Amino acid sequence: MTPDRLRSLLEQLQRGRIDVEQALEALQNWPYENLGFARLDHLRALRQGFPEVIFCQGKTVEQVQKIFRHLAGAGGPVLATRATGDMYEAVKQVCPEALYHHPARCIVHRAPEKPLFPGTVLVISAGTADLPVAEEAAVCALAMGNPVEKLYDVGVAGLHRLLDNQHRLGRAAVIIVVAGMEGALASVVGGLTSRPVIAVPTSVGYGASFGGLAALLAMLNSCASGVGVVNIDNGFGAAALATAINRLLKGDK
Amino acid sequence: MTPDRLRSLLEQLQRGRIDVEQALEALQNWPYENLGFARLDHLRALRQGFPEVIFCQGKTVEQVQKIFRHLAGAGGPVLATRATGDMYEAVKQVCPEALYHHPARCIVHRAPEKPLFPGTVLVISAGTADLPVAEEAAVCALAMGNPVEKLYDVGVAGLHRLLDNQHRLGRAAVIIVVAGMEGALASVVGGLTSRPVIAVPTSVGYGASFGGLAALLAMLNSCASGVGVVNIDNGFGAAALATAINRLLKGDK
Amino acid sequence: MTPDRLRSLLEQLQRGRIDVEQALEALQNWPYENLGFARLDHLRALRQGFPEVIFCQGKTVEQVQKIFRHLAGAGGPVLATRATGDMYEAVKQVCPEALYHHPARCIVHRAPEKPLFPGTVLVISAGTADLPVAEEAAVCALAMGNPVEKLYDVGVAGLHRLLDNQHRLGRAAVIIVVAGMEGALASVVGGLTSRPVIAVPTSVGYGASFGGLAALLAMLNSCASGVGVVNIDNGFGAAALATAINRLLKGDK
Amino acid sequence: MTPDRLRSLLEQLQRGRIDVEQALEALQNWPYENLGFARLDHLRALRQGFPEVIFCQGKTVEQVQKIFRHLAGAGGPVLATRATGDMYEAVKQVCPEALYHHPARCIVHRAPEKPLFPGTVLVISAGTADLPVAEEAAVCALAMGNPVEKLYDVGVAGLHRLLDNQHRLGRAAVIIVVAGMEGALASVVGGLTSRPVIAVPTSVGYGASFGGLAALLAMLNSCASGVGVVNIDNGFGAAALATAINRLLKGDK
Amino acid sequence: MTPDRLRSLLEQLQRGRIDVEQALEALQNWPYENLGFARLDHLRALRQGFPEVIFCQGKTVEQVQKIFRHLAGAGGPVLATRATGDMYEAVKQVCPEALYHHPARCIVHRAPEKPLFPGTVLVISAGTADLPVAEEAAVCALAMGNPVEKLYDVGVAGLHRLLDNQHRLGRAAVIIVVAGMEGALASVVGGLTSRPVIAVPTSVGYGASFGGLAALLAMLNSCASGVGVVNIDNGFGAAALATAINRLLKGDK
Amino acid sequence: MTPDRLRSLLEQLQRGRIDVEQALEALQNWPYENLGFARLDHLRALRQGFPEVIFCQGKTVEQVQKIFRHLAGAGGPVLATRATGDMYEAVKQVCPEALYHHPARCIVHRAPEKPLFPGTVLVISAGTADLPVAEEAAVCALAMGNPVEKLYDVGVAGLHRLLDNQHRLGRAAVIIVVAGMEGALASVVGGLTSRPVIAVPTSVGYGASFGGLAALLAMLNSCASGVGVVNIDNGFGAAALATAINRLLKGDK
Amino acid sequence: MTPDRLRSLLEQLQRGRIDVEQALEALQNWPYENLGFARLDHLRALRQGFPEVIFCQGKTVEQVQKIFRHLAGAGGPVLATRATGDMYEAVKQVCPEALYHHPARCIVHRAPEKPLFPGTVLVISAGTADLPVAEEAAVCALAMGNPVEKLYDVGVAGLHRLLDNQHRLGRAAVIIVVAGMEGALASVVGGLTSRPVIAVPTSVGYGASFGGLAALLAMLNSCASGVGVVNIDNGFGAAALATAINRLLKGDK
Amino acid sequence: MTPDRLRSLLEQLQRGRIDVEQALEALQNWPYENLGFARLDHLRALRQGFPEVIFCQGKTVEQVQKIFRHLAGAGGPVLATRATGDMYEAVKQVCPEALYHHPARCIVHRAPEKPLFPGTVLVISAGTADLPVAEEAAVCALAMGNPVEKLYDVGVAGLHRLLDNQHRLGRAAVIIVVAGMEGALASVVGGLTSRPVIAVPTSVGYGASFGGLAALLAMLNSCASGVGVVNIDNGFGAAALATAINRLLKGDK
Repeated sequence: MTPDRLRSLLEQLQRGRIDVEQALEALQNWPYENLGFARLDHLRALRQGFPEVIFCQGKTVEQVQKIFRHLAGAGGPVLATRATGDMYEAVKQVCPEALYHHPARCIVHRAPEKPLFPGTVLVISAGTADLPVAEEAAVCALAMGNPVEKLYDVGVAGLHRLLDNQHRLGRAAVIIVVAGMEGALASVVGGLTSRPVIAVPTSVGYGASFGGLAALLAMLNSCASGVGVVNIDNGFGAAALATAINRLLKGDK
Repeated sequence: MTPDRLRSLLEQLQRGRIDVEQALEALQNWPYENLGFARLDHLRALRQGFPEVIFCQGKTVEQVQKIFRHLAGAGGPVLATRATGDMYEAVKQVCPEALYHHPARCIVHRAPEKPLFPGTVLVISAGTADLPVAEEAAVCALAMGNPVEKLYDVGVAGLHRLLDNQHRLGRAAVIIVVAGMEGALASVVGGLTSRPVIAVPTSVGYGASFGGLAALLAMLNSCASGVGVVNIDNGFGAAALATAINRLLKGDK
Repeated sequence: MTPDRLRSLLEQLQRGRIDVEQALEALQNWPYENLGFARLDHLRALRQGFPEVIFCQGKTVEQVQKIFRHLAGAGGPVLATRATGDMYEAVKQVCPEALYHHPARCIVHRAPEKPLFPGTVLVISAGTADLPVAEEAAVCALAMGNPVEKLYDVGVAGLHRLLDNQHRLGRAAVIIVVAGMEGALASVVGGLTSRPVIAVPTSVGYGASFGGLAALLAMLNSCASGVGVVNIDNGFGAAALATAINRLLKGDK
Repeated sequence: MTPDRLRSLLEQLQRGRIDVEQALEALQNWPYENLGFARLDHLRALRQGFPEVIFCQGKTVEQVQKIFRHLAGAGGPVLATRATGDMYEAVKQVCPEALYHHPARCIVHRAPEKPLFPGTVLVISAGTADLPVAEEAAVCALAMGNPVEKLYDVGVAGLHRLLDNQHRLGRAAVIIVVAGMEGALASVVGGLTSRPVIAVPTSVGYGASFGGLAALLAMLNSCASGVGVVNIDNGFGAAALATAINRLLKGDK
Repeated sequence: MTPDRLRSLLEQLQRGRIDVEQALEALQNWPYENLGFARLDHLRALRQGFPEVIFCQGKTVEQVQKIFRHLAGAGGPVLATRATGDMYEAVKQVCPEALYHHPARCIVHRAPEKPLFPGTVLVISAGTADLPVAEEAAVCALAMGNPVEKLYDVGVAGLHRLLDNQHRLGRAAVIIVVAGMEGALASVVGGLTSRPVIAVPTSVGYGASFGGLAALLAMLNSCASGVGVVNIDNGFGAAALATAINRLLKGDK
Repeated sequence: MTPDRLRSLLEQLQRGRIDVEQALEALQNWPYENLGFARLDHLRALRQGFPEVIFCQGKTVEQVQKIFRHLAGAGGPVLATRATGDMYEAVKQVCPEALYHHPARCIVHRAPEKPLFPGTVLVISAGTADLPVAEEAAVCALAMGNPVEKLYDVGVAGLHRLLDNQHRLGRAAVIIVVAGMEGALASVVGGLTSRPVIAVPTSVGYGASFGGLAALLAMLNSCASGVGVVNIDNGFGAAALATAINRLLKGDK
Repeated sequence: MTPDRLRSLLEQLQRGRIDVEQALEALQNWPYENLGFARLDHLRALRQGFPEVIFCQGKTVEQVQKIFRHLAGAGGPVLATRATGDMYEAVKQVCPEALYHHPARCIVHRAPEKPLFPGTVLVISAGTADLPVAEEAAVCALAMGNPVEKLYDVGVAGLHRLLDNQHRLGRAAVIIVVAGMEGALASVVGGLTSRPVIAVPTSVGYGASFGGLAALLAMLNSCASGVGVVNIDNGFGAAALATAINRLLKGDK
Repeated sequence: MTPDRLRSLLEQLQRGRIDVEQALEALQNWPYENLGFARLDHLRALRQGFPEVIFCQGKTVEQVQKIFRHLAGAGGPVLATRATGDMYEAVKQVCPEALYHHPARCIVHRAPEKPLFPGTVLVISAGTADLPVAEEAAVCALAMGNPVEKLYDVGVAGLHRLLDNQHRLGRAAVIIVVAGMEGALASVVGGLTSRPVIAVPTSVGYGASFGGLAALLAMLNSCASGVGVVNIDNGFGAAALATAINRLLKGDK
């Protein structure tokens, strides 16, 4: 139940094109739908501008399939993150048009054909091993309606790779920086731009990265200002925050 | 050296109102000024929209006084955070108009008289003990040119205090949530709004808050999306990120 | 050796229906039975109201089978947690009526047919991935004789799902809240009710949940009062504490 | 605004003894009262059975005084924890009858003259250095209306001190165990009783107690069941959970 | 090269039964033997009373086989810990009489046929899941020449199982306590005896045991005195310390 | 009530030198004495060979004074650790002969005039800053009846200082190694001797010692065997374990 | 593009042997080459004296193959670390002369035939399980042009193995110490030599090594001076730092 | 006893200018001198090129004074770090020429008048609050005989401050990078130079720097190679490692 569909439904009722019974039927799973093991939050699109996203990790293949089918039935876009290949096979059976983005591990259905928001989201990554997380951020940001650009493998060990692309920082509205190891790229980018920077630490690194803790702490302690941090490996979270900012730019409620 | 002053200087040169020597003199400490123990980054206002902010913690009273004087000499606004009363006394000797905001522990000089940016920054705090951090966020956001509103002591133990004020969430452009203990307020606010939420964990709490670690981890793990996290007790950092977003709204570079 | 069986045995002796030899034989493995690798604590039902529960993790299939057989031989209910499918197959060979609850990973034998205690235990979970832990709590609570209700997938990112069911909080005697990620649900529920709340953090979440540490710390730091916390993913522990409270209500020693 | 006072007010209105204006005036700060820096949650007594408790740590003396005065003005009992002597001096100026319990660091006003609830709360402590936390638990439990007994300095290094008092465990309804160092007392007590045990780790100990972390982890990992844990040094939290259980026994909503 | 063999060699030389060349040949790999990837410390039996023990974890099957063969060639007892079944198969090819102790994961060769030392080492374990570590301690202690007794599954949740066997504590010279979860057994045993207690934390437990950290910290913080702690799951280390104490009793250098 | 005094009392009763009333009076505070805030464990000397030791940290001056007086009244030796100068002043008022050992921060009363046990306890320290902990170990070991030798400031950065004294290792029965920073001294000593080594990590060091955690982990991971570890800065604990070993040597129960 | 090749190219242009178009073509992927998922930093050999090294962990086999091919195409040496056997098979298809060093898990191509630098790098390891990391250090140091010597399995539990080889410390220019468990070897070596010591903690050890944390902290806290630490298991990092020092000795820029 | 003094002494003996008695007297405190609480390692200058340095933290004023006097008596340079003003006052009484460097908190005596080694040590710091640690590194490096240059307050938030001084990196032999917060400066400098980089994390920062842990982990995880890390706030350690490298350049043993 996207905001547009809800508005349209209520207008049809107001104009007498449907009666109350029809409206009630359309709204019967609204604002949430109880699957027993899950309560689908159909109100979320109204409240947050995008329907509930399926975080597949920790769910069974059957649960993912069932939730995907119900959310798809609500008529809006559907996005599933941390999806395995098996989950995608199951989803395809109930929703054949859904697409799988491999390194990003995302299933996307009914992504907007063109951007909904004005500002470009620039996804920057430090190294090749950070690519799955960077791609999750990029695929999610696209699915949510943002124009997306990418600047990959520009870690601070070879600073000229970033400085050569410094002009691209200024053209973006929001910058997502994805980095593991010591996560210094977030501070360096933050120091070069006045744009809001969303930092995503990754779990890439030798032993003392402690599963991403090193990059996480580094980003939280960034000496550059204007940097907000999301969870380790959470490309989706960065995309969601970028979308919230971009919605402001468009003037959406 | 604010952007406006630099532009004006260059225009005067172009129009022949000053000569190259005069321009050079005005620019002599530009882009940074070496005090020996510190290099003041006068370029920062151009690059990031606000001059370098003085983080007083770990500096001596003399160092704060000297840096404050030099930054004030550059002609723009000056902001010092984590300033003790002693530091303020020393600053007043070289800059008598500077103001001290007590619970926020900030010294402010030449704050803008009216907001520079369009969007309201709403600062929400969970409990009374979080007030110093919330005030740091509010005072810094004001000093940087944002319209600021406050909604204090609305922790989730008494959820109706927040729900009664839910309409104020929608009126804000950016929401800063300041909370210690378990930091749940960030998730609850994040679930109620489509606005970007900047979460500030505080070091308030019993033993197992471990100096704010509990709230920090909670905010990073927020099940609501659209939440970016800054360092523990870092009200300034939240204000800076809010300003970066607000500058986008105004269309500033 | 449940309290009822022990009392009955002693009464039979008192009334001369059995002689001392017979009583001794019945008591020969009492108060504990030495299997070599394990000492079965048959006294526990007397002391704590429920026989020793088998925590299968870290035990071999053979050990689980052997312990299950001996505990079943004592005549009371038997409960095994963290049991794999292989363990269940082995248990079925020695105790064919035992039942396996799949997502809860519990083997249950001779569960009470109707509740033994008056108060309802309400199990609330935040997300679908928390379901195995929530089910462990529910299955154990049922096996121990509590009336159980469930309210699943009502995490704070969609607060209306919980608020719509707020009346169910008041009808319960004890509330078990199962949540991973930031664990905020425990605080929110705690703030809405005067009932004792038992919080179970789960290991569900992105990197910085650090295996459930984030939710654990959040729950320990709950700003709502009346919340007691058990170990990460320990649904059984929550059920046991709920049972201890419920036994009080019934007036059991 | 305690439940009794609210009921009485509404009955007076119903019976025509007061008019709507008078009722409104009485209710004007209801359900919460905005002091600017704090929102007093007058609804909490209704929702949780006891008015909001003042956690003094992190608040200024002036804030504590002001909040105390307003809560006292609501007519019910008032309880402040972690109060310094200075805070008590300030409170006495506005509320001369308030009492200070020294090792517990609590200010109590209008504590019930006799117990409100039927079950005894037994507070057990491991060592003399745990006394301030144990006393906080005992004083808070008393102030909230529980009958309270104490059994101090019975740590497991001299187990006979506890075993000699084992009969007192069975006479209690709820047992609060306060222990630092390795916190083993919670497990030992938990193994000896079927009563709900509330474990309070304290920060007492040599270096590797890490501010109470050792006892906290030990209690969360208790091999005895029926144990719920609260925050380090949080005697108040244990009392609040005990009260929630005791209210059930009385049959309160 | 055990102390006895070395003494005998030197005496033979002194008495002219062998010549210097023969002595040199016998000593050629003494005090250590360089295998390239390992330097076997043949001096260790002299210095510490027992030959170098092979810690198999992190070594390849080939390395274990080769080291075992060389140590066996030195003529004394050989002990390998953390050995997999594959490693044992490889060792058997070069040393057919070597024995494998399954739950202890130890390979033992030429263990003493009767105890070398006077004092009994009593190995106590808390639960069945601690058995592999307890068995490692027991097998190693036996192989090093200690009389060994076992008392398993006497965790503090059923304290009577331990109290019933209290007399066995006094009969032992050294007590090894193996426990996971909250590790309280070490404190309880320590409080009941004046014997030296060696505490071995195990990695058994729910999430917040953090791989044995909870038990480790608990044991280090034991309120009972006379307790020394070894590494998590390090049954071998406990046996080695017990042997060092037992050697004192025998009066060995 | 030391073992000797108890035996003497019972013998006097047996021989008719005192009557039952007199024996009862003498035993009235036995086996423990309830001071309200503390239960003095007079049985401990019987059970563990030394009376209860007062750990002063976290106790008030008044509590220390009162406990000291009561323990002194029992007639045996009294030992208080972590005592401040103020505490000693208070103790002197009730027990003028008590002595204060300054860097060790111990108050000792009625220490044995000559050693009770045969084996020498050698206390080794790594650096001068470890001296207070080493002295606590030495003073406590002496007070408990052990012959004590000291070898201070022989850290591994200047290995020859230790190697020059290697012969002293072999003359000791038990070796206590006190070291901060990286705690390597425990492993080096452990590798040079077959004696039981008790390792005491100290909180001495730069930032990443994390209050002694670095040395603690190092000692637990010692590659040398025969090493048992006690808590950070816990010199007393090392002395108590050394005494337990030494009592074995004497053949005490 | 090694420094020599770049200089040669520019000289050819200067002397008219190639024209600008040819030079441009040769330089077209210079200073970095964008593969889409990776930006190869061809400038690194100029800046740091050795081409970019491929850290294979977290990369796919295809990515490793492609990067290896492009770096090999630049004409200089190629080094890949943390390479699996599968990766080597893929690399061999595009670069048949590349060699695989098994325990070091490194692929090396065009290693220098004789040392480029004057000083010997001595790699010391504590135990056999540390061998893979020690070999990574040795193989990388060789591939980068250093003379390399090895001294393995000389842990401090058998100190004479190291002391016997003490003369080799003085012959080396730089010493790399590889050790797990308590990592004491770094301090002992550091105390015996005036050479710069590079310490590499490994993840070898029992539970409380916490994946190498114990050795890492120990090495950072070394009481011997002249010790620099690299990441856990990071043999490559140690080799790179040794090379930087060795380049100084040669007088390279 | 510096190497030069020892050589001179032995040459005098060889040439008959002193007799054996005189030589013995001069060597009587050699190789170490036992002060009771400390063993001064006079051999260290021979072994490591610089006499033992006094780490004052954790020592009493009297101990520092006494050690300083004895080391000064040995005739070489003396260096004390972490010295308070009180300690300096005490040292001046016994060694009036000693100098105190205030922000570095070092006492220096008989520093070399001109550099002993050829390579310049460049000390770079990120922010003004890092100055005490940077100064400790600089003062110690000077006292040990290195030419020293400084480049302060060039943190990555204003990258141009560093890039403007990039030419100075190449002129140095060894670079010490001192940074708190996220410590990114080490990686950025490491990426710009082929010189060995010694990284010193500082404890400067907001809450989640956790006393320097964030910077420490970042530096250990540096994506740039050629970086060795020392302990938090350990400026001395960095200077000592730089000196070890510089001694190599000079060709010293």
